[in-house]
Amino acid sequence: MQRSWVNSGSEEPCEEPCGETSEEPSGGSDLHLELTGEGSLRNRLMRALREAIESGRLAPGTRLPPYRTLAVDLGIARNTVAGAYAELVEEGWLSARQGSGTRVARRATPLRGDMARGPARPTPRRTVHDLMPSSPDASAFPRTAWIASARRALAAAPHDAFGVGDPRGRIELRRTLTEYLARVRGVRTSADRIVLCSGFAHGLGLLGRVLTGSIAVESYGLSFHRDVLEGAGRTTVPLTVDDRGACVEELPGTGARAVLLTPAHQFPTGGPLHPERRAAVVDWARATGGVVVEDDYDGEFRYDRQPVGAVQGLDPDQIVYIGSVSKSLSPALRLGWMVLPGRLVDGVLALKGQRELWSGVTDQLTLAEFIASGGYDRHLRRMRGIYRRRRDLLAARLAAQAPHVRVSGVAAGLHAVLELPPDTEEAALRAARRQGLSLDGLRPYLHPDSPMTARDGLVIGYGTPPDHAFAAALDALCLALPDPPEDPAEPPPSRRRG
Amino acid sequence: MQRSWVNSGSEEPCEEPCGETSEEPSGGSDLHLELTGEGSLRNRLMRALREAIESGRLAPGTRLPPYRTLAVDLGIARNTVAGAYAELVEEGWLSARQGSGTRVARRATPLRGDMARGPARPTPRRTVHDLMPSSPDASAFPRTAWIASARRALAAAPHDAFGVGDPRGRIELRRTLTEYLARVRGVRTSADRIVLCSGFAHGLGLLGRVLTGSIAVESYGLSFHRDVLEGAGRTTVPLTVDDRGACVEELPGTGARAVLLTPAHQFPTGGPLHPERRAAVVDWARATGGVVVEDDYDGEFRYDRQPVGAVQGLDPDQIVYIGSVSKSLSPALRLGWMVLPGRLVDGVLALKGQRELWSGVTDQLTLAEFIASGGYDRHLRRMRGIYRRRRDLLAARLAAQAPHVRVSGVAAGLHAVLELPPDTEEAALRAARRQGLSLDGLRPYLHPDSPMTARDGLVIGYGTPPDHAFAAALDALCLALPDPPEDPAEPPPSRRRG
Repeated sequence: MQRSWVNSGSEEPCEEPCGETSEEPSGGSDLHLELTGEGSLRNRLMRALREAIESGRLAPGTRLPPYRTLAVDLGIARNTVAGAYAELVEEGWLSARQGSGTRVARRATPLRGDMARGPARPTPRRTVHDLMPSSPDASAFPRTAWIASARRALAAAPHDAFGVGDPRGRIELRRTLTEYLARVRGVRTSADRIVLCSGFAHGLGLLGRVLTGSIAVESYGLSFHRDVLEGAGRTTVPLTVDDRGACVEELPGTGARAVLLTPAHQFPTGGPLHPERRAAVVDWARATGGVVVEDDYDGEFRYDRQPVGAVQGLDPDQIVYIGSVSKSLSPALRLGWMVLPGRLVDGVLALKGQRELWSGVTDQLTLAEFIASGGYDRHLRRMRGIYRRRRDLLAARLAAQAPHVRVSGVAAGLHAVLELPPDTEEAALRAARRQGLSLDGLRPYLHPDSPMTARDGLVIGYGTPPDHAFAAALDALCLALPDPPEDPAEPPPSRRRG
Repeated sequence: MQRSWVNSGSEEPCEEPCGETSEEPSGGSDLHLELTGEGSLRNRLMRALREAIESGRLAPGTRLPPYRTLAVDLGIARNTVAGAYAELVEEGWLSARQGSGTRVARRATPLRGDMARGPARPTPRRTVHDLMPSSPDASAFPRTAWIASARRALAAAPHDAFGVGDPRGRIELRRTLTEYLARVRGVRTSADRIVLCSGFAHGLGLLGRVLTGSIAVESYGLSFHRDVLEGAGRTTVPLTVDDRGACVEELPGTGARAVLLTPAHQFPTGGPLHPERRAAVVDWARATGGVVVEDDYDGEFRYDRQPVGAVQGLDPDQIVYIGSVSKSLSPALRLGWMVLPGRLVDGVLALKGQRELWSGVTDQLTLAEFIASGGYDRHLRRMRGIYRRRRDLLAARLAAQAPHVRVSGVAAGLHAVLELPPDTEEAALRAARRQGLSLDGLRPYLHPDSPMTARDGLVIGYGTPPDHAFAAALDALCLALPDPPEDPAEPPPSRRRG
């Protein structure tokens, strides 16, 4: 290893390492250069000089020894040192002027102190049990099968798959989805009408910019989705949600030109849209030219019966269907699809741009292979079993330990709403936080303009915890639930501590 | 296979297939139901009924046979037929009323004629040779090495990698990039200051919304990037570009609070930013609190010398560095990174949202492994050899066949600008189209507000064609170039035909 101690005042190398003076950014101290690490000698010298400047050991304005001298000190070729100097001049670290030699440039200051840390952010309270709704069990991602599909898909892909992409997404996946969605969800479309996206929010944001006027939404829903629509320039108008789903008969009174629905499984309250309302919303769309946006976020997960097919199949010319792998496989894949009425395709593509900017091709190709080879069906079958057991466990545990807390909605999806007695939601959330439990209250899901009375409840995601941790999460949950309504014949249960 | 001919008027099955009457959507014709394909009998029956309704063979209002009758006809259980009817009622395909039996719902009309085709779009002229700038050779994507890295990366990843993602992107990739960018591009940062994005445009769009005021851009540049900035609410102000790169000394006069530069290799004109201007732009940013956005789109591809390091290293607190794999590996991966001054991190993350919505995790993890295992360096070395040879071939061919056409810029990247005589660009582009050659003219790259006089030129991407097709692409290019300026001593070369 080549070493040199550069004294920026003289050109005499000293014989002892002088690292302890490195705190002092003055121009007079000896500096230790070690050409360590990988790369050519020139690169190693450049790195050593940059580091010396960064750390303040070589202060701005410091004159470097002539390259011939340093070359002798380090025992390396003159050209190497001259090249490194020239390079660092070009990069702006050093400056070279006729007559005054090579100096550390005035602007090459050391990193500020906050560099290593990055910006400060608050430390969140530690979550022991994650029961936030909507995430699947990340530990169940089918890694081996996915990689096997990726290998086959990448081997079979044409070269142009790795070029600039079609904004609709890869044809292989759009073709596979056409068949898959018809078979499993009753969706009727063609590959030309499918546009891939990076997930539901991406699709919704694009639609929000293509549609005009206000858009009706269910009174209960994700505020994040309302934000996406409002960020796209739409006003959202709430529809009442009752035990038959969204009251679509309110649509004519809203003036809305589109409506966002979760027909298979109202999110989060959990009921399916009643068949009469499915028919009524299609009638409304046909009569007014309105657009129905169907959020089929967990359509593959129904446990008590075969899932109800998508509304989209009733009228592919009025209904936009959006799905993704975020619940079925992983939200980390960032892969979803919009099934569009023909008249909306060009508008969505114009917004998406001439090139595919969002969805990576390897996952698109892999998902197509994964579906076509039957891997996706197998995975869904397995996950249905897992989630169904968890939902049953949740229901059984509540029936035993908190019979006054009702689970609303149908047996489907990755979440359940626990209906709480009036004015107990806040206390239950506080108790949950004390248990290290992260979950959602129901009240934040209510649209702020909704005339509905806010109900108290908890929105529980049973998808996220790995199997082995689920029983403990239920224990913690039961401890956080409010007491049953008072019954003078019975003392309060002893479990309600803290 | 179970078959039945449903006569919607009577309940008698007929004995002959009557498919030829299927064009007639009246209620009186016999209809053929075949329970083909996969799935349970109930699913197959539902599919057959849906198809009959979709195709118009079962018209709206048509009464279906009682489920008992159909069950006998098909030789399947009554419950199966009853279940299928109930399901289709629930989905809205059928309607059931007390006393009037089960009928095809009034709103279940057949698909419109344009369904199979999707929206009409113009057929582009066929491209024989793709010399559009900026794309790498898609045929050189390192599939085998990539899959090997994906396998190792997915096997090693923690479970939470498949859960809802950090909006900064996976820590594995941010850590690896911190080291890689320091080693190869002289970038100084920490993993906390890197935010992954789906490519340069995504990063630029986020920045455009975080920055305020107008932003200076190089007079020559991608109009797409100006559009992204303007879409984010910024006004773009052009800086003159000369043979030392962008004239950053104009910055104080523009009133801009940020500047977008391509310091390593001005795009598209091809020169590096002069060291004095590198220093000057850092001085400007320090003096004014301005932000420099460094687009390092092809920093790894320099052929005549070692690449000049990133400007970012001179002052990580003033300079945003954006890079991606779009040139180095494939634009289809949709993977890039922003290296941010600490004060901009929170703003960018607030816009990006609380969850990672854009970049898929498998490619993030795979790229981290690909870099760490040395696969990325090997791939870049190989590609540098390929692109360098192509650039040399291009230069040699032009020197031999069109010595009057100058190649501007340094030997770097995936593109070259051919400088043309005044007022010949349009004709050259027309000639190129006739040759089936797709390439860009230089004029569209000029900012519409730039005071610079538009120069005529062609922007040639030599990255895209696969190796075996490159010589033919050059032949076509030479045929499209304008004649040399007239020289009475020399007759026009015979190659200028058509």
